[in-house]
Amino acid sequence: MTSEPLAPPRPRGERAGEHASAYSTLKRLLVGRPLATTELEHQRLSKTVALAVFSSDAVASTAFGTEVILRVLVPVAGMAAIGYLTPLSLLVVAVLAILVISYRQTIYAYPNGGGSYIVSRENLGTTPSLVAGASLLVDYTLTVSVAAGVAAITSAVVPLRGHQVALGVGLVALIAGANLRGVRESGRLFAVPTYGYIVMMALLIGWGLVRSLSGSLHQLPVDRAELDHLTHQGALLTGITLFALMKAFASGAVALSGVEAISNGVPAFRRPESRNASITLAWTGFFLASIFLGVAALCLHLRPTLSEKETVLSTLGHHIFGTGPLYAALQATTAAILCLSANTAFADFPRLSSVIARDGFLPRQLANRGDRLVFSNGIVALAAAAGALLVAFGGTVEALVPLFAVGLFASFTLSQAGMVMHHLRQREPGWQASALINAVGTGATTLVLIVVLVSKFTAGAWVPTVVIPAVVLGFKGIQRHYQRVEPETATSPTERLPQLRNTVIVPVGRITKPVLQAIAYARALRPDHLVCVSVAFDEIDAERIAEAWDSHAFDLPLEILPSPYRDLTKPILAYIDRMDDLRDDDVVTVVIPEVVVSRWWEHFLHNQSALALKARLLFRRNTVVVSVPSHVD
Amino acid sequence: MTSEPLAPPRPRGERAGEHASAYSTLKRLLVGRPLATTELEHQRLSKTVALAVFSSDAVASTAFGTEVILRVLVPVAGMAAIGYLTPLSLLVVAVLAILVISYRQTIYAYPNGGGSYIVSRENLGTTPSLVAGASLLVDYTLTVSVAAGVAAITSAVVPLRGHQVALGVGLVALIAGANLRGVRESGRLFAVPTYGYIVMMALLIGWGLVRSLSGSLHQLPVDRAELDHLTHQGALLTGITLFALMKAFASGAVALSGVEAISNGVPAFRRPESRNASITLAWTGFFLASIFLGVAALCLHLRPTLSEKETVLSTLGHHIFGTGPLYAALQATTAAILCLSANTAFADFPRLSSVIARDGFLPRQLANRGDRLVFSNGIVALAAAAGALLVAFGGTVEALVPLFAVGLFASFTLSQAGMVMHHLRQREPGWQASALINAVGTGATTLVLIVVLVSKFTAGAWVPTVVIPAVVLGFKGIQRHYQRVEPETATSPTERLPQLRNTVIVPVGRITKPVLQAIAYARALRPDHLVCVSVAFDEIDAERIAEAWDSHAFDLPLEILPSPYRDLTKPILAYIDRMDDLRDDDVVTVVIPEVVVSRWWEHFLHNQSALALKARLLFRRNTVVVSVPSHVD
Repeated sequence: MTSEPLAPPRPRGERAGEHASAYSTLKRLLVGRPLATTELEHQRLSKTVALAVFSSDAVASTAFGTEVILRVLVPVAGMAAIGYLTPLSLLVVAVLAILVISYRQTIYAYPNGGGSYIVSRENLGTTPSLVAGASLLVDYTLTVSVAAGVAAITSAVVPLRGHQVALGVGLVALIAGANLRGVRESGRLFAVPTYGYIVMMALLIGWGLVRSLSGSLHQLPVDRAELDHLTHQGALLTGITLFALMKAFASGAVALSGVEAISNGVPAFRRPESRNASITLAWTGFFLASIFLGVAALCLHLRPTLSEKETVLSTLGHHIFGTGPLYAALQATTAAILCLSANTAFADFPRLSSVIARDGFLPRQLANRGDRLVFSNGIVALAAAAGALLVAFGGTVEALVPLFAVGLFASFTLSQAGMVMHHLRQREPGWQASALINAVGTGATTLVLIVVLVSKFTAGAWVPTVVIPAVVLGFKGIQRHYQRVEPETATSPTERLPQLRNTVIVPVGRITKPVLQAIAYARALRPDHLVCVSVAFDEIDAERIAEAWDSHAFDLPLEILPSPYRDLTKPILAYIDRMDDLRDDDVVTVVIPEVVVSRWWEHFLHNQSALALKARLLFRRNTVVVSVPSHVD
Repeated sequence: MTSEPLAPPRPRGERAGEHASAYSTLKRLLVGRPLATTELEHQRLSKTVALAVFSSDAVASTAFGTEVILRVLVPVAGMAAIGYLTPLSLLVVAVLAILVISYRQTIYAYPNGGGSYIVSRENLGTTPSLVAGASLLVDYTLTVSVAAGVAAITSAVVPLRGHQVALGVGLVALIAGANLRGVRESGRLFAVPTYGYIVMMALLIGWGLVRSLSGSLHQLPVDRAELDHLTHQGALLTGITLFALMKAFASGAVALSGVEAISNGVPAFRRPESRNASITLAWTGFFLASIFLGVAALCLHLRPTLSEKETVLSTLGHHIFGTGPLYAALQATTAAILCLSANTAFADFPRLSSVIARDGFLPRQLANRGDRLVFSNGIVALAAAAGALLVAFGGTVEALVPLFAVGLFASFTLSQAGMVMHHLRQREPGWQASALINAVGTGATTLVLIVVLVSKFTAGAWVPTVVIPAVVLGFKGIQRHYQRVEPETATSPTERLPQLRNTVIVPVGRITKPVLQAIAYARALRPDHLVCVSVAFDEIDAERIAEAWDSHAFDLPLEILPSPYRDLTKPILAYIDRMDDLRDDDVVTVVIPEVVVSRWWEHFLHNQSALALKARLLFRRNTVVVSVPSHVD
């Protein structure tokens, strides 16, 4: 147990390496080994894996799309609502078809990734692109699918009901962790639930429709208690209105989320990227439409009653599969694809942040790639925001949907409008047809956006109309800052290094080893002027200080500053000001001794005066504060 | 709007002074002008003022002493409880008499201030003194009187009921502010309510007893609703047991808090300090006993029903004074003395902390006097802790009393026992009588402590039996740390300054003005070895960096470090390690350019890589990190 002076050369391996290596080991364990830039190509995804990674969100939304439509209609129309399910589902699928065809064009036009942000930026200008970027970033934080996944779990596992928020936050943490480990592992992790879900839904719909049509499966009995609860004993039964249908459609349209994910992720596909991405998008559309319409058909035949405790899919599963392993598999794969589909957000949020950051609208550090080829900063930020929102909105799908829908269709619309402009400018072969397709897309998504805003405004759609512009203003503020600072910090090769004259001041209290080390360090800086200063509260104090100083015979000047008001910092600050006026040196360096202790709480027992002085010098111009650490073991 | 290079001499008055003076002005406005050490004597208090400052707590406790006794007895005995009030009050006054006589001896024996801590330390040893110190510090944070003051306010001002916690926290903040302004102002501030309360209580008791005995004032009618509520429709009425009487006495004994305050504050009295303090203590005892017994007598004659909404004192005041200005004055002075009596804690907590800190059991900075002759650090810490406890315990007197009583009687007991040892050792003239007095005091307070612990253990008295030992362990941990570090950091006059060889490393990203300034500063340090380093992610990156560097022709070496894993910090850390192994220089100084921006949020847009590097270098031995600030306006 000895104080370590600065002087003797230290033994090898006894330095920060220990701290660093403990940190590295932990990071390696949790995140995996780092990947070199040259390994980037091998991280490309096959179509099968890419569908799982980028389309799980789109496919998974079939698990709650039907239900959110019923949740709007049943309270006003009772069991009659089921009659409207098929036409509304067909309308959603029609919009889906338009989107798939539209985005196919985007994929070919922007093989380096053409999300709404990039397409709007290239074709519509800065502000529209920032609106698209803000809409997407806000939506990524609204992990609707995690909430729906939790609902699938609590439908099957009764004891977990009431713990929705905790479950949601836990799942978000899990997904963030998987993403920090890197894209390829994510792909493997997500393929099983995605294809598992598709298989189970095919079984459910196929087996259900066959048995139903063959007459071996009867309609579900109406659950009067649940229905009375939902309609408040029939008090809410006002019948179907156009407004109710608009609201129901606006809810159901959320099932289209994730369709644009592939166009954002084109560079992650194997070559030829655009072709592979386009094929994957077509398959995504096929799965989404089939399952969505299949569930609507099942509902039409089996007429499930909406319940507070169980999802519609779980009710159907119970009826068709019973309570055996097939039902369990259905719920498990549903929960898995829903929760993991939040991965779309985790794959795209950091990617989009880094693009926006490179354009100067987000802090520069978000543009840096982490050492696992994924953008760790963005992932951590997203997980935090998503967790906070799950807590704030109680973790239910219905509460999140209106907030989510606005950003979704705003970005769809901007992306489509951008593509129209693209074709009008490029005039590539067959541009007229392409422009027409995207114009139809723009019209359709604009219409949906208006429906969402009008029918859901008071139910939460007003929130994004405040948040998205605020985020855009934030983007612009950040860019203005960087643009303002840029010319101030820019240099030219003709600029020479200034010759600086340096005055060094060492504040000295009691003369201890850390103080000796600070003085020795200050002398090693070979300053133009070196002076030690000490603060004395009264005459006796001053004499005591002078005596102690003289006894050491340092051969250095000591200024004793009187402080009748027992303040340590002010006399030193005043002295620095005087020095500055007297001498025309360019920099004042204040060298402060600092005791470094091994336990965190011990830090509060030292250096408090130094801390106060440092805080006061922080904003002083042409002043450099140097803490000379003395390690105490 | 220009970047400010380090080179040109800056204009006068355009430096940190601005920040400092804005801070000083604010502090002056809130706290008042600083006082020089020589003004300390003039801060001494007259007896009249000292009674207000040191005894407000003791006197004020008469406002709730009677009530807390009734709150224990009424639920088990109904209105019959009032019959036990007089004997219990007499018992409390008997203990008070013993304490006043005992503490009179302490005041003479310890004219420099003889609180439990000092008396125990001098006579019983370290651990008992730390137990006393911990007991007192814990009790200072339990501002029972603030809670009682809030009850007095909500008794009279009906709309404030339900806001007890907010009121309590506000009052704590107010008192802390008054104390930060200094002792003398506090004295003036507190004299009016203290003497106002004494006068109002004299009026209440005198007028009430005269009218009651002359037959012009009848007993209060029994409020059946309140009584049924308190006794749960009589279900709790088990009659008076010995245990109930013990609990009631333990509660009432809390009224003795503050009796020791004067013995702690002897040096604040005018000369002759001991005599003046002793006289003030006698008066305190007289006021306390008279009012306490007077209220008991009033209760015996008027038989008020305990209420959830109103204090007993307020009920009596209404009955005797009606609802006019006299009642208002009673409640106002009661609230004022109670809230301000918390000042005893604010006067003594920082004082005691500084004594304990000087003994090395608390962080050194608590020993520093603030610049208003009061111990600002302690005051701020106390206000924070008291506020937190008011919030945690819902701001009610009953909840705080059991926690408070343990510390109170533990410190009384240790102080008395210490005085017995003192007399046995000193054997001053008449020491036998003195020792006997303090021995009786020790016995009485030990007995009360046992009663408190036994009767209130489950009601909260267990908390201090955990917290006080924990605080004592904390004290010892802090002292162990200082004792361990002391020899490590100690020097002797024969110790010479080591000659240090300094290697300076400047990490360089893009070459900007802040980077130029950092390099210029590094050169001004005239190091034994100076090298700039840059991190390149790939070959192209490396070439670009080398080209940019060469174009500047700095005539300084640049090391380009490859980083295939795109990590900025690790290659630099590894380079520093290599440098350390190659060269036997003693110190490595890493000079980091830092952009200083004017708005706080802008800081997040800069220096993030620098921050990561600094964090990793913080614990590296013999490494000094220097941030060279470049101010951007």
